[in-house]
Amino acid sequence: MVRVGIVGASGYTGGELLRLLLRHPEVEVAHATSREYAGEYVFRVHPNLRGITNLKFEKPNLDETIKRCDIVFMATPHGVSSRIVPRLVESGVKIIDLSADFRLKNPEDYPAWYGWNHPNPQLLDKFVYGVPELHREEIRKAQFVACPGCMAVAATLALAPLAKKRLVKLDGIVIDVMMGSSGAGAKPSRSTHHAERYGVIRPYKPAGHRHTAEIEQELRALAEGEEVKVAMSAHAVNIVRGILAVAHAFLKEKLTLAEIWKVYREFYQGEPFIRLVKDRKGIYKLPDPKAVVGSNFCDIGFELDEHTNRIVALSAIDNLMKGAAGIAVQNLNIMLGIDERTGLDIPALYPV
Amino acid sequence: MVRVGIVGASGYTGGELLRLLLRHPEVEVAHATSREYAGEYVFRVHPNLRGITNLKFEKPNLDETIKRCDIVFMATPHGVSSRIVPRLVESGVKIIDLSADFRLKNPEDYPAWYGWNHPNPQLLDKFVYGVPELHREEIRKAQFVACPGCMAVAATLALAPLAKKRLVKLDGIVIDVMMGSSGAGAKPSRSTHHAERYGVIRPYKPAGHRHTAEIEQELRALAEGEEVKVAMSAHAVNIVRGILAVAHAFLKEKLTLAEIWKVYREFYQGEPFIRLVKDRKGIYKLPDPKAVVGSNFCDIGFELDEHTNRIVALSAIDNLMKGAAGIAVQNLNIMLGIDERTGLDIPALYPV
Amino acid sequence: MVRVGIVGASGYTGGELLRLLLRHPEVEVAHATSREYAGEYVFRVHPNLRGITNLKFEKPNLDETIKRCDIVFMATPHGVSSRIVPRLVESGVKIIDLSADFRLKNPEDYPAWYGWNHPNPQLLDKFVYGVPELHREEIRKAQFVACPGCMAVAATLALAPLAKKRLVKLDGIVIDVMMGSSGAGAKPSRSTHHAERYGVIRPYKPAGHRHTAEIEQELRALAEGEEVKVAMSAHAVNIVRGILAVAHAFLKEKLTLAEIWKVYREFYQGEPFIRLVKDRKGIYKLPDPKAVVGSNFCDIGFELDEHTNRIVALSAIDNLMKGAAGIAVQNLNIMLGIDERTGLDIPALYPV
Amino acid sequence: MVRVGIVGASGYTGGELLRLLLRHPEVEVAHATSREYAGEYVFRVHPNLRGITNLKFEKPNLDETIKRCDIVFMATPHGVSSRIVPRLVESGVKIIDLSADFRLKNPEDYPAWYGWNHPNPQLLDKFVYGVPELHREEIRKAQFVACPGCMAVAATLALAPLAKKRLVKLDGIVIDVMMGSSGAGAKPSRSTHHAERYGVIRPYKPAGHRHTAEIEQELRALAEGEEVKVAMSAHAVNIVRGILAVAHAFLKEKLTLAEIWKVYREFYQGEPFIRLVKDRKGIYKLPDPKAVVGSNFCDIGFELDEHTNRIVALSAIDNLMKGAAGIAVQNLNIMLGIDERTGLDIPALYPV
Repeated sequence: MVRVGIVGASGYTGGELLRLLLRHPEVEVAHATSREYAGEYVFRVHPNLRGITNLKFEKPNLDETIKRCDIVFMATPHGVSSRIVPRLVESGVKIIDLSADFRLKNPEDYPAWYGWNHPNPQLLDKFVYGVPELHREEIRKAQFVACPGCMAVAATLALAPLAKKRLVKLDGIVIDVMMGSSGAGAKPSRSTHHAERYGVIRPYKPAGHRHTAEIEQELRALAEGEEVKVAMSAHAVNIVRGILAVAHAFLKEKLTLAEIWKVYREFYQGEPFIRLVKDRKGIYKLPDPKAVVGSNFCDIGFELDEHTNRIVALSAIDNLMKGAAGIAVQNLNIMLGIDERTGLDIPALYPV
Repeated sequence: MVRVGIVGASGYTGGELLRLLLRHPEVEVAHATSREYAGEYVFRVHPNLRGITNLKFEKPNLDETIKRCDIVFMATPHGVSSRIVPRLVESGVKIIDLSADFRLKNPEDYPAWYGWNHPNPQLLDKFVYGVPELHREEIRKAQFVACPGCMAVAATLALAPLAKKRLVKLDGIVIDVMMGSSGAGAKPSRSTHHAERYGVIRPYKPAGHRHTAEIEQELRALAEGEEVKVAMSAHAVNIVRGILAVAHAFLKEKLTLAEIWKVYREFYQGEPFIRLVKDRKGIYKLPDPKAVVGSNFCDIGFELDEHTNRIVALSAIDNLMKGAAGIAVQNLNIMLGIDERTGLDIPALYPV
Repeated sequence: MVRVGIVGASGYTGGELLRLLLRHPEVEVAHATSREYAGEYVFRVHPNLRGITNLKFEKPNLDETIKRCDIVFMATPHGVSSRIVPRLVESGVKIIDLSADFRLKNPEDYPAWYGWNHPNPQLLDKFVYGVPELHREEIRKAQFVACPGCMAVAATLALAPLAKKRLVKLDGIVIDVMMGSSGAGAKPSRSTHHAERYGVIRPYKPAGHRHTAEIEQELRALAEGEEVKVAMSAHAVNIVRGILAVAHAFLKEKLTLAEIWKVYREFYQGEPFIRLVKDRKGIYKLPDPKAVVGSNFCDIGFELDEHTNRIVALSAIDNLMKGAAGIAVQNLNIMLGIDERTGLDIPALYPV
Repeated sequence: MVRVGIVGASGYTGGELLRLLLRHPEVEVAHATSREYAGEYVFRVHPNLRGITNLKFEKPNLDETIKRCDIVFMATPHGVSSRIVPRLVESGVKIIDLSADFRLKNPEDYPAWYGWNHPNPQLLDKFVYGVPELHREEIRKAQFVACPGCMAVAATLALAPLAKKRLVKLDGIVIDVMMGSSGAGAKPSRSTHHAERYGVIRPYKPAGHRHTAEIEQELRALAEGEEVKVAMSAHAVNIVRGILAVAHAFLKEKLTLAEIWKVYREFYQGEPFIRLVKDRKGIYKLPDPKAVVGSNFCDIGFELDEHTNRIVALSAIDNLMKGAAGIAVQNLNIMLGIDERTGLDIPALYPV
């Protein structure tokens, strides 16, 4: 059994990692830390784990983590792992980082998008950007993986096939993303108070969203040499789990639906967690986060708008799964060389 | 007292008209028709009107309508008013049409966007497009007013000041609109079944939404001579009332926030139902339908994205109010020459 | 114009009072205090009031309140008004207290149900319990009114006709109350965090709810001399506004539906804000808070269960209206000797 | 591999059975019927199963069912299985019936509670009431199992320990049950239309709920010889999945919390799907359906009310799991003699 640890296990991402890893047949959860809840039963914070585990949160302690774990999941706030990772790097443990600290390859992107200078820019190259559909082979050999931002993975996967084939004007991509409240984390505030957050369609980040940097980085890599510019806005809607990314891309030349369909099918052939959703019947003809809740699927679909020569590329994920803990476990499986679906072969919960 | 009638009063728009008109000091509701509920108490269908009125729905009957009403609100499904309006036109009654049948001025737009040929294209010119912020003087003198589509009014008002000044590239506007379930009407179906519709972010019309035609028509008029092209997508979210329109417009030249702010302020100065919302503090810094529920306000705000030289223009309305019944009553007031706020001076309900 | 003040105006009850009083034709809002938001525009906290008022919150200052107001609404946390009311009493201003501090007539009920000794028990008798349906004449002459708890008013009004006629076993009443999140106030906490509070049916007070004391006090008064015992439980559900009270009462002797119907009709005849809802048709056959949102109505209905010789008495209110600010304004109107519906003649918002 | 069939597989219960059985290691789904969707891919109706199965619905055909299945799940509307079961009985297949047709042992209960005469009362005795916590040994040997009503299982399990020990007055039990919309099935109607069903607390069955009969039957069996009378009311709330049952039971003699705690612990010791939830800390101190969504757990807790000498016994389930498909699979496992948790060892999804 591989011994895994979770640093920062009391947040929603930490809880979702626990839900998955406690039922994962190849690993043992050796260690779960929380500054706020140290000493407390895990099930007091994550009520779904009552009767599933008697694990307690421990105080963060890097020495313990190194000693007791083969692989460490960092589910810490942004800015934490970039400071403590150097210690872990030396130790030889593998790291799957769910924070933003090692996602961007260009050190200058950190001051530009995050407003701080990266304390250990020399380590950025050691981390593989953890989107299996784009970097599977690198992840397989990686010691360190930086999992993507939840909106970034949704938007990037919706656009990747088009970018790869350079079919659209990549310097004028417009993306609207709608997201549930769990994406804002477990810490209460006025803006997440039920009476305030319920029923909103709140434009919480119309410009300057940090995930833009990741999306541009990955699209740029796919469309070698092309200018990439992403105009993204993010909005909060009245659900807890789920992201819908709506990407508007203008075609360079006319394409038929059948041609686009082929591009997507080729790009995602054999991918265990991509479903192409563009159906003729039923009420789930296109991606909708309602159909992926609790699963690791990224549903991808598209529509062609002849009026504007536009492709609307759509993707839906569960932000805590494919957008965080699920993709992290998928990366773990790849790093371990086991079936990618291990511990993740869970249909979505529907209706919910 | 002006005698008003509502043809098609059992839908949500009809119900909202009743809520407003029954409390309007200058009118008397003389007539409310419903094919489905003829003979039934209005409060059986609109439970909020129990104890407010003992009115009953009547069977649609044009002769009665003409005889008993000075002004008729048409809250019928698309395709109905274009057939019956000729009769009403002759009669001399005034008409406020809430359907799509007389919104578009170019007869060819009907086959293009609605898939049918308009049966009475010669009447299109007789109808004023009922957005007071754009056509107040014409409405004042009008006998016939065609109220806008709910998404159209939100999106158009968000962009109008920019179009008027021709500050943005109008041939590449991208709009995402999110909407509550009341916009789909009162008729049950699998896609509006609570267990299916709850919790969705459903891309129900990524391309080809009919309201696009209205938006283009109005922006074109504002930006005389400029090419206008709107790439719109519409999505269903987990609320009942409310629309957020997110319009992405790319600036022709650099502008500061202060300059944009001035453009909006000048355009909407003195407007009783426009609130410019771009605050530095609080959790309602930008338009959010949660802050307009039950009111006739259209909240408008914007953000400047220097990364892409983009303005994100945002607007929030209650789709049954400023998007339907509220704007209809606002038009009524203008036609009657009374204070535009009569019967509409209602703060939003918050929190709800 | 009567000058009114609101002490504690930044909470949800304070905001609802502002919504109502700013549109009330007989009063002027002279003063609104908030410790937390002193100096801030009211519309920053209550976004529905943007464009309605430019009022700012002031720091609490009793001298100012006394000087500038004829009537003061106390929308403070429990325990505040009982300390400051003595000053106000001397001053001659009228007080409408929305806290629990003067609801109970028996001083011993405070340690028993609230866990503290009342600091000014001699003033308890000076306050009239502000439920117009039960104490209209006293309210008319009152200088001081203590508005009821939101659950208490719902449950009491559902049972009052039965208690008055002593038709049911009052020593074994069982009540379940379901409530929306606005009832918990505006202060964020883990239990009201959207991701935690959304989707719950949470039994937050299965026993010992403080409103029990008020319900027993009022039922006891109605059923002079009878033993009254109420077994109440309170649950949180996934809405913002609204309360449903479900009261189970066992009949002393068999009664027909028609007889019960008559008892309710007689008791509530002429009441402007009571609607008896027990319909044969439609989907709103019985009280449902959805049909009263934003209005001051208390909908009351009942069902007869022959299997257990039980009446299920049901009532639905908007907790911020008939459960707080609405009933407070109703009391104001009675105290002012004006039409009880002034400023409150608002149909519910539906659907929402 | 055991070959299982699902008759009536396109409803929500059928979909949930498919979700579980397609991942169950000991069975093979050989057959899924639907009158409405015959010939259609299962994933068109149950979008969570896209990418999981390419199964199609087949037209109902009893001969096929008998030929191809060892065990048949009947997920049909009430009234269907009582007519077709005789054929299945002869065939030797095992039946797990999720409808109401064989739950009640006394034939007279059918006209009394369901309004029809049972067509095959002689078969009632052949069916075991499928609540493992009450009838595990009988289920083990059963050929036919009748799964309980969703509200019935929640309420019965909350009260069973008290009934068994005869600690409370069983002739005066009051139960309020709150339920999500999936319990009403997949068929659209005005009352389940999102705009109507969202935000309600709707008392849809204050008296005469059919599940009352089951609860009384089981409590009577537990408390041999005692008079049992249940006064139940059922309410619809704004969630999709989940039931909270609140049972008010009056103690015959004073008991301490510790004593009650002991009664529950002894009764449910070793039960794999019962969690006793009565915690001192956290925000999930008592049962709340939010903590069981997607799992087969029945969370049970209680509170003692000294004011009325009452126990409030609470239970929370996912109505599609422990209330329908989950308990059916649990029964299947028992009938197969395998670990009861097979295919059901799934933590709840949280937060959702």
